Amino acid sequence: VNPAPTQSAAASELVLLNGQPAGAGISCWDRGLHYGDGLFETIACKRGVARLLNWHLERLSLGCERLRIPLPNLSELRDEVRLLARSADSAIIKLMLTRGPATARGYAPTGSEKPTRITFRQAWPPEDPAARQDGVRVRIATLRLGENPALAGLKHLNRLEQVLAKMEPNDTPLGGEPAVESLLFSSSGRLVSGSMSNVFIVRGSRVKTPRLDMCGVAGVMRRLVLSEALRAGVAAEECILRPQDLGVADEIFLTNARIGIWPVRAVDSRPLSPGPVTRRLQQHLAPMLEEPSDA
Amino acid sequence: VNPAPTQSAAASELVLLNGQPAGAGISCWDRGLHYGDGLFETIACKRGVARLLNWHLERLSLGCERLRIPLPNLSELRDEVRLLARSADSAIIKLMLTRGPATARGYAPTGSEKPTRITFRQAWPPEDPAARQDGVRVRIATLRLGENPALAGLKHLNRLEQVLAKMEPNDTPLGGEPAVESLLFSSSGRLVSGSMSNVFIVRGSRVKTPRLDMCGVAGVMRRLVLSEALRAGVAAEECILRPQDLGVADEIFLTNARIGIWPVRAVDSRPLSPGPVTRRLQQHLAPMLEEPSDA
Repeated sequence: VNPAPTQSAAASELVLLNGQPAGAGISCWDRGLHYGDGLFETIACKRGVARLLNWHLERLSLGCERLRIPLPNLSELRDEVRLLARSADSAIIKLMLTRGPATARGYAPTGSEKPTRITFRQAWPPEDPAARQDGVRVRIATLRLGENPALAGLKHLNRLEQVLAKMEPNDTPLGGEPAVESLLFSSSGRLVSGSMSNVFIVRGSRVKTPRLDMCGVAGVMRRLVLSEALRAGVAAEECILRPQDLGVADEIFLTNARIGIWPVRAVDSRPLSPGPVTRRLQQHLAPMLEEPSDA
Repeated sequence: VNPAPTQSAAASELVLLNGQPAGAGISCWDRGLHYGDGLFETIACKRGVARLLNWHLERLSLGCERLRIPLPNLSELRDEVRLLARSADSAIIKLMLTRGPATARGYAPTGSEKPTRITFRQAWPPEDPAARQDGVRVRIATLRLGENPALAGLKHLNRLEQVLAKMEPNDTPLGGEPAVESLLFSSSGRLVSGSMSNVFIVRGSRVKTPRLDMCGVAGVMRRLVLSEALRAGVAAEECILRPQDLGVADEIFLTNARIGIWPVRAVDSRPLSPGPVTRRLQQHLAPMLEEPSDA
């Protein structure tokens, strides 16, 4: 499996601002910039199809509801993403929706803001096929995520914690290549996720992933694993996970919309092997990810 | 004291993007927009002078250091703010510094980003002189702030918690005007601040303000109160404060760079009076705020 794009990065890159080519850039007064007052989705496109588009739009809608950002016209949004996806064999579409330019000073929205929609199409990034096959190294971040149920689960624009986690020194305790992802715990000591992925642990034949009621982003690939696990013959559940759960895991894997499932082959200096449960889930999802349907 | 601006709002509004008039807006790729990856300062200007400018620049520098954003040229920044302040009798200057447009996908900065500086000059907002004299109503927010020492104290661009706190229903339990500010506790139950102000409580002759090692913004007016208190004959300290400390306070007051000191005259349905300690501090600071020096 080689997901390298068939077109050049320059050819696939495109930005639409409220549906129009974004030549000039966005308003300096946009609340997305001032407060991170908005949401985004990162949508993987394969063979001209935006994968799991309905779930991405569902999460965006839920985010709008919780942040009380006026819901955009979803069918217009769907058409825009589909149009951008259609002309690319492999691409990433980032869809951003902010509350829009401020209509008054201060944190409180007036309610009269007009949301800003920015759609970015970018080339599928270079990816090592070994990541899916042999697994990736991860480290445990020093930074802990703050807990706030009001923001938990949403893919909002307040992402400084993830930026700081990614900036931590990335040592290589086993002398090999550096870790590609950082696992994050919350301030009260719960396992939450990777910095740009969700995490699952396997213990025996059971799969568990952190409940995201205090922090973290509820990823669409996480949702796909949870909803497809039974069909793949695996019991999966959300629960509260602590450091000791990570320590006794037989297998660990990461998910996100682009990578699908990546086995973890080391957590800091502890080696792991991609195991049978991870493999079974990978095989079960492969057709959906490689030949996605546009339903 | 009537801080109404002497010039019209339109005349004082001005935006500079990296030192140039910001006609076109900022890049859609700016990390300030994507991740809230940046910092800001809100500087009150009176009689042509940017108040406490050195402290604002100090906090900005500290933020750059902690977020590892390249430090801007501070003397250039100082000159820009001073120039904008000079031509306005009363104005607010918001200084924003982001890590700049992304040079690669993902949360991790490459280190080759060029920071974006945006300087906004806005009219001093209309203000009720009674706020300083008779005090303001505050409410206690339902939302609790997440705790993260890595971000605590900084005036960074991840402000969704403040936005949500300001959007909570603002009931008026005493039948009077609505609360002008919301007090926030953290996830572990510590008093932190208001949504756009710092908070002090007075008990006997002692003044206490929350230590900001887990969350909250370390405001410059808070710093001025802490550094000037002794000269005003008042003992002031930072400490951990709980709901019961708020409950037994003789006086409570709020600070921020624009408002100076506002006494609190009610917390939810509990009435309070602006007391002697708050008055003494207000009188002590008044000359510094009304006739600021440009040192």
